[in-house]
Amino acid sequence: MTSGGYRRITHLLSAAELEQALRQIGAERYHSRHPFHKLLHEGKLNKGQLQAWALNRFYYQSRIPMKDAALMSRASDPDLRREWIRRISDHDGGGPDDGGIERWLRLTSGLGLDADYVLSETGVLPATKFAVDAYVRYVRDQSLLQAVASSLTELFAPSLITQRVAAMLANYAYVDKKILSYFDARLTQAPQDSSFALAYCQRHAQTIQQQQDVLDALYFKCDVLWAQLDALYYCYVSPGHAPPGAFIPDTDNS
Amino acid sequence: MTSGGYRRITHLLSAAELEQALRQIGAERYHSRHPFHKLLHEGKLNKGQLQAWALNRFYYQSRIPMKDAALMSRASDPDLRREWIRRISDHDGGGPDDGGIERWLRLTSGLGLDADYVLSETGVLPATKFAVDAYVRYVRDQSLLQAVASSLTELFAPSLITQRVAAMLANYAYVDKKILSYFDARLTQAPQDSSFALAYCQRHAQTIQQQQDVLDALYFKCDVLWAQLDALYYCYVSPGHAPPGAFIPDTDNS
Repeated sequence: MTSGGYRRITHLLSAAELEQALRQIGAERYHSRHPFHKLLHEGKLNKGQLQAWALNRFYYQSRIPMKDAALMSRASDPDLRREWIRRISDHDGGGPDDGGIERWLRLTSGLGLDADYVLSETGVLPATKFAVDAYVRYVRDQSLLQAVASSLTELFAPSLITQRVAAMLANYAYVDKKILSYFDARLTQAPQDSSFALAYCQRHAQTIQQQQDVLDALYFKCDVLWAQLDALYYCYVSPGHAPPGAFIPDTDNS
Repeated sequence: MTSGGYRRITHLLSAAELEQALRQIGAERYHSRHPFHKLLHEGKLNKGQLQAWALNRFYYQSRIPMKDAALMSRASDPDLRREWIRRISDHDGGGPDDGGIERWLRLTSGLGLDADYVLSETGVLPATKFAVDAYVRYVRDQSLLQAVASSLTELFAPSLITQRVAAMLANYAYVDKKILSYFDARLTQAPQDSSFALAYCQRHAQTIQQQQDVLDALYFKCDVLWAQLDALYYCYVSPGHAPPGAFIPDTDNS
């Protein structure tokens, strides 16, 4: 049974069935299936399109610690906060030359974008901001269980990242391992984060409604990621309608 | 000129004048001046009243990391987040036997309260919860500048803590240094935290309105602290009207 395309459950799932249902959502809706990612991984993006991807994705990266802090601001359990705080440290690092955000800047710089321009957030597509901001608000406003569950796309991240790193090194001459260091760190961080979040959801979703909430949160998050690639595709691939103020690649990168 | 008792400024203050205005608010309104604290420091509370103080104050302590996470969820500047995250670590610690919340539990346990009862948050005065929850909401909803400024009561904490520790050790036979370990840590943490927050406010309050916001935030926070002691006083000192469900000390502690 479906409603708005989201699967509706009608009986209480076992922990294993809940995990299976979550993995099924990933198989159907994770942004690894998006046409923009297919172009990226097949080496079919030009440098300007890669820049646009990295620039817009930086806005997402920059908001992740704020999202995680919003989650912690709602958690009265110190154990949950002690687990979750590592995500913020991973992203922000111990100083300005460290952490996931800084490593993403190495990617944008390595692709030829000026760091000040990236940090200014001008040039980011409005649709990117709307999707990312919706995610931060979701974590702030929905139940704590849904906030945790919305992180579960990390279950599917390692496989996508492994594929991406290999594909980018193989297909883009100007990409080297150094500018992809963000992804190295995520390969160890994401499994640690997602296994905690999965166990948390299995333990705390004790009613049909709560299990539905967990599934819906993952549907929502998949939509957030997908919408960002839609925006990139429509602006930079086809039909190519850049909204006012959006990043326009130099013509020698096209 | 005053409005509702809050000082109104009519010209832009220098950094030193702003600090002076903030310290003036502390001198007039910090809860060190509250009658309940005077009783506490003069050894005039019985053990049940001390328990009530520690129990209610635990609720405040338990919400501080959530308040700090709410602030971080609004900070897009990684430098601010990297500074602020230490407050959460200080409170939550690296594990369940560590951190400020755990150290406050040593105080409540040392005063004879069951830890499970304290953690259950039943028995906390509703007025305590309303004041503390108002603080968390304030930090979430007002400007980031006001959120930072509302922490500035820490400017006045070390002096109160020093006085409190000496007075409690001198006046209450059942209090020893071990159960006061929370305060030891705060003596080094508070000055580090407050000097950063003060400098932040001096740097970011660049208009009369922003400076007024900073002052108002400190007024608000002083009200939050004061209201908690009012609630304790009215329930446990005089006139002694405990609301339904509130903690009632054992008669041998009275």
